[in-house]
Amino acid sequence: MKKGRFIVLEGGEGAGKGMCIDYLKEQLNGRGDMIFTREPGGTPIAEKIRELLLSKDNNGMLPLTELFLFCGARAQHVNELIKPALENGKKVISDRFEDSTIAYQLFGRCRGELRDVFNSLNNIAKDGINPDAVILLDVPVLIGLARKRKSGDGLCTRFDEEKVDFHDMVRAGFLEQYQLAKESGKNWHIVETTVMTEQEVKEKVLKIVKKILEE
Amino acid sequence: MKKGRFIVLEGGEGAGKGMCIDYLKEQLNGRGDMIFTREPGGTPIAEKIRELLLSKDNNGMLPLTELFLFCGARAQHVNELIKPALENGKKVISDRFEDSTIAYQLFGRCRGELRDVFNSLNNIAKDGINPDAVILLDVPVLIGLARKRKSGDGLCTRFDEEKVDFHDMVRAGFLEQYQLAKESGKNWHIVETTVMTEQEVKEKVLKIVKKILEE
Repeated sequence: MKKGRFIVLEGGEGAGKGMCIDYLKEQLNGRGDMIFTREPGGTPIAEKIRELLLSKDNNGMLPLTELFLFCGARAQHVNELIKPALENGKKVISDRFEDSTIAYQLFGRCRGELRDVFNSLNNIAKDGINPDAVILLDVPVLIGLARKRKSGDGLCTRFDEEKVDFHDMVRAGFLEQYQLAKESGKNWHIVETTVMTEQEVKEKVLKIVKKILEE
Repeated sequence: MKKGRFIVLEGGEGAGKGMCIDYLKEQLNGRGDMIFTREPGGTPIAEKIRELLLSKDNNGMLPLTELFLFCGARAQHVNELIKPALENGKKVISDRFEDSTIAYQLFGRCRGELRDVFNSLNNIAKDGINPDAVILLDVPVLIGLARKRKSGDGLCTRFDEEKVDFHDMVRAGFLEQYQLAKESGKNWHIVETTVMTEQEVKEKVLKIVKKILEE
């Protein structure tokens, strides 16, 4: 049986995920066994939940409701797309997964008290699917936000509009997840993008992905 | 301190909930302490989740995703509206609450295997808020659906379009919830609307509500 692989790119705003995903598509799509997706989203229903989550109209959304919607989108994404793809031997690369929810919703919103609730909801949502490898793109917050402002993307979601403190907590969340993952022997990679050129970042991520695909 | 009260009207399609709620509003709004609401919905964010849940465009939604969205809408509704209202001594009357999720999602979709998942999600969502009383409007499915077709409402949601078997299971779910509630001494009332006139149904429900409000 062909071996499926589930690789996740994580990182805060302006860390370079989008650019790397584009490059990976360009370089790897020819293989014919790659599926590129994202969270929240990745299927038509989950993309509609994404719209609700990210729209600036919905600033009144409670942190608990956010967790339900992120995990609801994940339930749809995992069961409709990721799980069948992996069972079919595909290599799935996702722009964000559960660690973004931890970084943004638990750290960013300083809602550590929701950790147990998150664990319950997330375990139901992901239904036993864990990333085979995670690549964390890291950059200091002010540099990341400046990059994002300069890029065509702009700051267009509810989360982009949060204060620098929020993004500092998000970054701390990702870095803590990285430490915990390394301590428990998980296959995590960190790419510090601060002093690298865009091309260097893209090549480095491609190299890591190729290595993971060969494992 | 004034005593809040949380009363829920439950029932399948065409049982007469909408008509009763309109009548209750007309008869009770003058009291000044009444809040009428509904599920899924009741707050701007929860109403947007409602649109996703009920739209015929979203037939690809998995039963598990449905549970996340119903409970996410409930989390927002309970914490933004119901809980503060009850703490403020208000009397809240909701068109549907958790028993509709049991009847439609667990019984209607024959997803009894999701019962434990539902219990976990729902307990997180409702955050300790339970109805003080439930009024179940019951009517045989074919009569209910015929009434709904004749009314201005039409059959306009994903759930209206389900087959008669689905609605039979929904009704069985409500009736089982009623039996369980009575056995455990909960304050449930059933109104069999089949051979009653609309006016009789409305008066009966108003009488029950007035009695609950005086308890």
